[in-house]
Amino acid sequence: MDKTSLTILGCHSSIPTEKFYPTAQILEMKGAFFLIDCGEGTQVQLRKAKIKFNKIVHIFISHLHGDHFFGLIGLLSTFHLLGREKSVYIYAPKGLKEIIDVHFKWSYTRLKFCIDHIELSSKKLEKIMETEKVEVYTIPLKHRIYTNGFLFKEKPCHRKLNMKEIKKISSIKIEDYKNLQLGKDFRTKEGRIIPNYQLTLDPPKILSYAFCSDTSYYFPIIEQIKYVDLLYHESTFLKKEEDRAIKTGHSTANQAACIAKKAQVKKLLLGHYSNRFPNFKAFEEEAKEIFDNVEASEPLKTYYLDE
Amino acid sequence: MDKTSLTILGCHSSIPTEKFYPTAQILEMKGAFFLIDCGEGTQVQLRKAKIKFNKIVHIFISHLHGDHFFGLIGLLSTFHLLGREKSVYIYAPKGLKEIIDVHFKWSYTRLKFCIDHIELSSKKLEKIMETEKVEVYTIPLKHRIYTNGFLFKEKPCHRKLNMKEIKKISSIKIEDYKNLQLGKDFRTKEGRIIPNYQLTLDPPKILSYAFCSDTSYYFPIIEQIKYVDLLYHESTFLKKEEDRAIKTGHSTANQAACIAKKAQVKKLLLGHYSNRFPNFKAFEEEAKEIFDNVEASEPLKTYYLDE
Repeated sequence: MDKTSLTILGCHSSIPTEKFYPTAQILEMKGAFFLIDCGEGTQVQLRKAKIKFNKIVHIFISHLHGDHFFGLIGLLSTFHLLGREKSVYIYAPKGLKEIIDVHFKWSYTRLKFCIDHIELSSKKLEKIMETEKVEVYTIPLKHRIYTNGFLFKEKPCHRKLNMKEIKKISSIKIEDYKNLQLGKDFRTKEGRIIPNYQLTLDPPKILSYAFCSDTSYYFPIIEQIKYVDLLYHESTFLKKEEDRAIKTGHSTANQAACIAKKAQVKKLLLGHYSNRFPNFKAFEEEAKEIFDNVEASEPLKTYYLDE
Repeated sequence: MDKTSLTILGCHSSIPTEKFYPTAQILEMKGAFFLIDCGEGTQVQLRKAKIKFNKIVHIFISHLHGDHFFGLIGLLSTFHLLGREKSVYIYAPKGLKEIIDVHFKWSYTRLKFCIDHIELSSKKLEKIMETEKVEVYTIPLKHRIYTNGFLFKEKPCHRKLNMKEIKKISSIKIEDYKNLQLGKDFRTKEGRIIPNYQLTLDPPKILSYAFCSDTSYYFPIIEQIKYVDLLYHESTFLKKEEDRAIKTGHSTANQAACIAKKAQVKKLLLGHYSNRFPNFKAFEEEAKEIFDNVEASEPLKTYYLDE
């Protein structure tokens, strides 16, 4: 199983240019590839990152401003042209289904695969997806229009069997393994208790990722994203443009760092930079004054959650 | 005034990749910049070609398959974000207005500029636009869905005044210039006739451009595009895949050349290549067997119509 990681496809705001790509990222968690937002050009960035389209099954769209979803219709269309049959699940604000449907209506396209639209409209935290290994929650954000961030949490794993030790105890049968994985001690025929920790190893660490973009400086998210391993928090502006951030429903690098500090996250990634700042290292420097483990995200770079 | 020219932004079909861009081109004619089709990534290609967004006023969309318009909503959104106030005129099949409106409805965007939708639905040739210097007609094409090509024709210009000769005749007044430009002879007070050709110069050559994509091999267009200076005709496939061309409503390079030859055009440009042919010079070679003045179009290359 590959390591849990986040690959940035685009981390700029509003207008795509030759070098700046709007928001899109791939979270690889427990073998699944989650696409989060899908700005124009996402499919080309996916190719550059060598991520196979067919691995993407769940797509999360934060809100319906163009720089977060204008690449989606093209990506779905490409899925169709490549002969995809596997279903796609799209978690997005109400409205996206209508937008997608009207495109395919006028091109008279009958998709070869199903799209399952999970339309979001609640302003409260919701669990929106769950697999055997991962669960996903909305993070209600504060922006100019209805917007959600997303919290991805790995589920606790069972303890790993320590076969070297288990084989030393002849009375342990295969039927006992499940209880050992669940952390239970073992009782021999003679009534001797062997503590679980002698027969099993710790499971891999449980990791979590919070995506928060776009949003104003917004304290209610802190409780929900507490202690996450990686927080991506938008920083459209620098502190000197805080007025502009307030007016447009965005945050500064300074504010993103304050959120990270209060939530005691392990690492902060910045992004959604305004195109007016060509050197996005300035965002990192500003945030570092408040929160040390911070990095300004870069297109096509992969960040590992357990590092 | 700049020369009449065509700049290719994208000339591939269906799926955008790192190197292949779907259909989009800019025709510069008599000082106007006409955008023809607008596949995903067009706004980035416009930046690379250093074409100012504000120069684009008239946009022509051939049909509602994604590789011909998925970049349009992003471009319009960028116009808005850049503070555009000048109106945009969009000539496109019925349906595009609904697609654009639904996007801006859900993003709660009130555009700062007007979009004037000229919705096309006739299957007959129509004059759809006219300025003082240019007129544009639809070229009804044969494809899987309703599709138009476009014929751009410069209007005849007045003759140019030959000021060196005019100044030799003291009785010619400024009020007489208009008649001279219209080709009339001049009669002096003494009744002497000075023929027009002695006082004026030939006007610039009238140029015409025909865009035909996407289309099957379709003879009815020949009459309409006869003698154009430049014909862009799709050639999605090579001759060896003629069956596939018929099935999908496209043409081969060989067929595009036959159309060019029958229509006696001055030059043929090929495009809309299937991604399965990475070397698009093969299209040019195939067409050259039938029609000599042919070129396989390339992204970001400019072709001059009076060369």
